[in-house]
Amino acid sequence: MTTDLITLAKRYVPVLDWGRRYNRDAFQNDMIAAVIVTIMLIPQSLAYALLAGLPPEAGLYASILPIILYAIFGTSRALAVGPVAVVSLMTAAAVGQVAEQGTAGYAIAALTLAVLSGGILLAMGLLKLGFLANFLSHPVIAGFITASGILIAASQFKHILGIDAHGHTLPEVLYTLNENMNDANPITIAIGVGATLFLFWVRKGLKPLLIARGVKPKLADVAQKAGPVGAVVVTTLAVFAFGLADRGVAIVGQVPQSLPPLTMPSFSPELISALFVPALLISVIGFVESISVAETLAAKKRQRIDPDQELIGLGAANIGAGFTGGYPVTGGFARSVVNFDAGAETPAAGAFTAVGLAIAALALTPLVFFLPKATLAATIIVAVLSLVDFSILKTSWGYSKADFTAVAATILLTLGLGVETGVSAGVVLSILLHLYKTSKPHVAEVGLVPGTQHFRNIRRHVVDTDPAVITIRIDESLYFPNARFLEDYVLDRVAADKDVRHVVLMCSAVNVIDYSALEALEVLNHRLKDMGITLHMSEVKGPVMDRLEKSHFLQELTGRVFLSQFDAWVALTADRTPKAAE
Amino acid sequence: MTTDLITLAKRYVPVLDWGRRYNRDAFQNDMIAAVIVTIMLIPQSLAYALLAGLPPEAGLYASILPIILYAIFGTSRALAVGPVAVVSLMTAAAVGQVAEQGTAGYAIAALTLAVLSGGILLAMGLLKLGFLANFLSHPVIAGFITASGILIAASQFKHILGIDAHGHTLPEVLYTLNENMNDANPITIAIGVGATLFLFWVRKGLKPLLIARGVKPKLADVAQKAGPVGAVVVTTLAVFAFGLADRGVAIVGQVPQSLPPLTMPSFSPELISALFVPALLISVIGFVESISVAETLAAKKRQRIDPDQELIGLGAANIGAGFTGGYPVTGGFARSVVNFDAGAETPAAGAFTAVGLAIAALALTPLVFFLPKATLAATIIVAVLSLVDFSILKTSWGYSKADFTAVAATILLTLGLGVETGVSAGVVLSILLHLYKTSKPHVAEVGLVPGTQHFRNIRRHVVDTDPAVITIRIDESLYFPNARFLEDYVLDRVAADKDVRHVVLMCSAVNVIDYSALEALEVLNHRLKDMGITLHMSEVKGPVMDRLEKSHFLQELTGRVFLSQFDAWVALTADRTPKAAE
Repeated sequence: MTTDLITLAKRYVPVLDWGRRYNRDAFQNDMIAAVIVTIMLIPQSLAYALLAGLPPEAGLYASILPIILYAIFGTSRALAVGPVAVVSLMTAAAVGQVAEQGTAGYAIAALTLAVLSGGILLAMGLLKLGFLANFLSHPVIAGFITASGILIAASQFKHILGIDAHGHTLPEVLYTLNENMNDANPITIAIGVGATLFLFWVRKGLKPLLIARGVKPKLADVAQKAGPVGAVVVTTLAVFAFGLADRGVAIVGQVPQSLPPLTMPSFSPELISALFVPALLISVIGFVESISVAETLAAKKRQRIDPDQELIGLGAANIGAGFTGGYPVTGGFARSVVNFDAGAETPAAGAFTAVGLAIAALALTPLVFFLPKATLAATIIVAVLSLVDFSILKTSWGYSKADFTAVAATILLTLGLGVETGVSAGVVLSILLHLYKTSKPHVAEVGLVPGTQHFRNIRRHVVDTDPAVITIRIDESLYFPNARFLEDYVLDRVAADKDVRHVVLMCSAVNVIDYSALEALEVLNHRLKDMGITLHMSEVKGPVMDRLEKSHFLQELTGRVFLSQFDAWVALTADRTPKAAE
Repeated sequence: MTTDLITLAKRYVPVLDWGRRYNRDAFQNDMIAAVIVTIMLIPQSLAYALLAGLPPEAGLYASILPIILYAIFGTSRALAVGPVAVVSLMTAAAVGQVAEQGTAGYAIAALTLAVLSGGILLAMGLLKLGFLANFLSHPVIAGFITASGILIAASQFKHILGIDAHGHTLPEVLYTLNENMNDANPITIAIGVGATLFLFWVRKGLKPLLIARGVKPKLADVAQKAGPVGAVVVTTLAVFAFGLADRGVAIVGQVPQSLPPLTMPSFSPELISALFVPALLISVIGFVESISVAETLAAKKRQRIDPDQELIGLGAANIGAGFTGGYPVTGGFARSVVNFDAGAETPAAGAFTAVGLAIAALALTPLVFFLPKATLAATIIVAVLSLVDFSILKTSWGYSKADFTAVAATILLTLGLGVETGVSAGVVLSILLHLYKTSKPHVAEVGLVPGTQHFRNIRRHVVDTDPAVITIRIDESLYFPNARFLEDYVLDRVAADKDVRHVVLMCSAVNVIDYSALEALEVLNHRLKDMGITLHMSEVKGPVMDRLEKSHFLQELTGRVFLSQFDAWVALTADRTPKAAE
């Protein structure tokens, strides 16, 4: 094997790199982290499967092989891969369009969605298309996550109330909840509301209380994380002891005792074409969530994340989920932070977690037979309400109305029309707002700041000007949406001013001149020539100049191209009384 | 009536302005131009109606009221409005999707398309959305016009051959032509090929020949323009004299003798929703064609065109066409140039043309009974082949591969998938190519050009630098598609260089910092701080600075914001041996 091959293998299979340096210390730290994460993941996995509309074991299965595959191919040391809230909601929305919940077709469609999503992630990674995720702007992501949190919480109310409800938009969910309100089960409500209040209290009040009573902060922390397990144990025992299942409390029921089964997704062309766009959205959203968690944690330890390799790791994890009874997965925020805080040093911690969950799937599932669904709903509600953050509306309003519009539209459309429409509309809208802004660029007439060689806007600074020389700084690349704009602006400006003999286009902010803009410049040059005015350019950047030299424009240009705006000023004002000689 | 009302009326109804100054000289010039244009328009209108799949009189009707309405509301002095080749082709493609050619439904759908298109244009004009047309880049327009010319010529071969063919893409047309080739009629072919060759010769060879024989150039010019009328007269007489209609030559046949009838478009919701997107495309394409002709002609006489008022003029013309038996119209290139060259001074020339065409519709239609369709097809083929121009492929290839890609894709997709898909794909592709470029912006490390205060790329110019100070010029606005890019670039750059103590972002080319980029800058500032490196900015523009001042970023920034890059250089290198003191 040559060195090249080894380097290549290490690049695409990072485990070959860190695995060789693995030692006893790292093993101990990883083991401790794995135990803590496993305890937290058992109720969470069951709950997210419920949210996705799948049987509870699907959540466990989706956490086992995917974690191991990510440990082999991923680059983050602390990322914990598995079902997460937003992707579970998107799975429910996508699969609900092609199959009825509870049918075999529904579970198979979820497998297909996972494999499709994995294939898309893998392809993006191999083609180095990770940059595509950048088109999801921060405001759109923030708006989408907040709206998803609300949608998820609303969708769980039915379990808290013990009634039936459905829908993938807020109005649908609220309408069906309201319609069935009369069927509400008082005991279920008592369990659901009780568990919710308890979990909120555990989150906010338990740790300070324990510390005040003299418990060590680290132990108090573990107690806080075990809160959901406590709620699960207490409510399960209550249902078992008092026979509440016979009094209308919905329970998890029979969960097969098994390692993840080998499952076969369907590859029918109709199913693939129906699920392709949702799979693409799930891939991109999942990738963005995962990479932001991974980078935040990596930065704390001065490690680097390779986005394209992350795509490969997540792609492998999702394909694994699709063949072992799971559904789409990604790197989760809460579980990764817990993993990191618990001291996980390498991806091996993930592998140990997978072993823990496999043991749970094999041995512990009979214990959750009497677990009320209301308790699982409570854990979801408490978890997702931390995602809801409307402060982005305020900060973006203060900073930029365009960004605010993108956030507000994303939130409203996600709530009103569902996750897929919401996030797609957010992306398209932010692109359109940007194009609109660049189609009407900021243009400044500039003059010389006295005593310097620096030129600034005549309206904002005290500067020297010359009546025969107009210098126009265009604050935008020149390309098709604004090609006509500059032509109109300059012609309107010189039409009003008989003294003008030179127009200088200061191109320090022009990063591209495309073919349409080149033609517009040719027209401008020609029209100014007819008026007896010379057109010059200054501070044209290297890459832009390289392009212009390939065209005929520079031969036709009536004036010159100056390296700096100061050179232009010196040359064009030389025949007149200089107003600001250095 | 107050002065304000009069100003407002003059703005939206330009005839109130020029009509008052109308005099005898202008009347004479307009009259002469009208006669020349009328003679040219009679065969052209019949031919374009044929291309649109409508009865020949529709072409005449579409030239009468629309011309008058444009004369009242439009701003161009020379623009001649009526059926044009590309819009006729687009009409055939759009209406062909909802009705069978030759049925009453087809003609009604064409009326609806005209009214819809008129409504869209009017709305765009009133809402001042004329800038939207700028999103059709020059390369996309050039590619689209070339491909349309080929499609139109191909669609007319069936009339030259006397066979049946159909389809809205080149493969469809060629396939159906080939299938029916055995039905070809030799006499029709003789007429069609003869007329085509004759018209080509008239276009290229007649004028030089006449001038060489001593005919005055102006008269030779008129003879050239009357060429199509000559072909019409000769072939009509031949069909009449030799009874060729009975020997399989397709003729125009009965055309009603009537002024434009009052017609009622259908406003059924299904029809409107089916035709809305085609109407939008026709409106935008028609507007772009019309405005470029109008501006070219206006520039020759130092007049200005108001794009938003043009939209209103074209909107009124199309609504007029829809209620008087026509179909979508726009300002045509050939007819407008002829009108201008013939000396038209005001839009009244158009009104006189309308009167001429009304007389033709009322009195002359029996004369075209025996006119062979092959002759009309020949006039279309000769007219549109002048639109076909592949040189844009070569010039855009030399200038920019992105522009070339947009042209090539537009041509191929228009030919292969039809006009609507072609032009839409061209617009979307040019936007995506632009976004792709801005997502990976050009970044230059800059140094001081010795003896100046000017900073340029260290790789292109001989400049002074300081090992402790890195100055990075970002050649792009900072916004969501490239927000992460800068962060990665700077961190990679400083990671490799232990001497760096200051990073200066030179923002002369940064026209916008959006919310996503602001967050990325905050992260960058934080990470550099952890490394003991100070982050500065220089040459931040007014509008960008206004925004930053609304955020917390400037308080958190570890370094300073310098007015000019030279100030930054002086301040940051002051504590070291200055390398390039002024």
